[in-house]
Amino acid sequence: MVKKQVKKKRPIVLAAGVFDLLHLGHVRFLEEAKKAGGENAELIVIVARDKTVENRKSESPVMSENQRRALVESLEVVDEAILGYDKFDIGRVIEKIKPDVIALGHDQKGIGEMVRAAIDNKRLKTKVVKIGKFSEDELNSSSEIKRKIIELYKRQS
Amino acid sequence: MVKKQVKKKRPIVLAAGVFDLLHLGHVRFLEEAKKAGGENAELIVIVARDKTVENRKSESPVMSENQRRALVESLEVVDEAILGYDKFDIGRVIEKIKPDVIALGHDQKGIGEMVRAAIDNKRLKTKVVKIGKFSEDELNSSSEIKRKIIELYKRQS
Repeated sequence: MVKKQVKKKRPIVLAAGVFDLLHLGHVRFLEEAKKAGGENAELIVIVARDKTVENRKSESPVMSENQRRALVESLEVVDEAILGYDKFDIGRVIEKIKPDVIALGHDQKGIGEMVRAAIDNKRLKTKVVKIGKFSEDELNSSSEIKRKIIELYKRQS
Repeated sequence: MVKKQVKKKRPIVLAAGVFDLLHLGHVRFLEEAKKAGGENAELIVIVARDKTVENRKSESPVMSENQRRALVESLEVVDEAILGYDKFDIGRVIEKIKPDVIALGHDQKGIGEMVRAAIDNKRLKTKVVKIGKFSEDELNSSSEIKRKIIELYKRQS
């Protein structure tokens, strides 16, 4: 008798962010996110569109959406990086990807509320996991990196 | 008769650089470098020490040597990232790692001469490959990224 091969689906972890000026804080966040899905997890990352960032913060990202997406996808821990929808819609993303786990960064409060509302609304079983702040003695924030570059410039001029 | 299993050594490609403010130009350079070693190649990257950069250029890197090394190692294409010697010595690195291929970036003229001199001097068979400039319509230079951040800052203040 030939046994029917059942291909076990890998648990999908979804994470999202801007990922401007890629730093170790981003990488550690993504590594922790993937771990939350268990050993065999697949990590899909939604990279925010330039327009979405401009609407939510007062400034544009330094790196373009295409470059931010490609850089995130070049990380070993990431299986797939996708640009968000033109019109920001996390509920639609969740419905499409159907993740088992959604990982939220320490500074993702606003998006966290939207994620939880979408899960409740659609009665999904998606687990939401909060990832702590990665605290090495390093520049691990895009705004800190910008601040340092501007400080160095001011000192020189 | 039991055949003796001969484990075939993977060809080693060596690349080096500062890798400050990681961008797509860095990733594409490393991808091309690895390709130059053939299908099964292993890519080892030497990341320059802060002191070495300060001695060679007039300014310090924005990201510390530890962060630059860890970020480079988190790329899928990189097998191992190592900090350079405290006292810059590319000849010593080559002698230690014994790479089959050394990949040079389009802007690595100075180090290229030192690499060739070290190979001649030690009569090695190491192949030296020049990687062309990656030309997408993107920010792919650390100094361009700094310039853009300073421009944005000047416009705001």
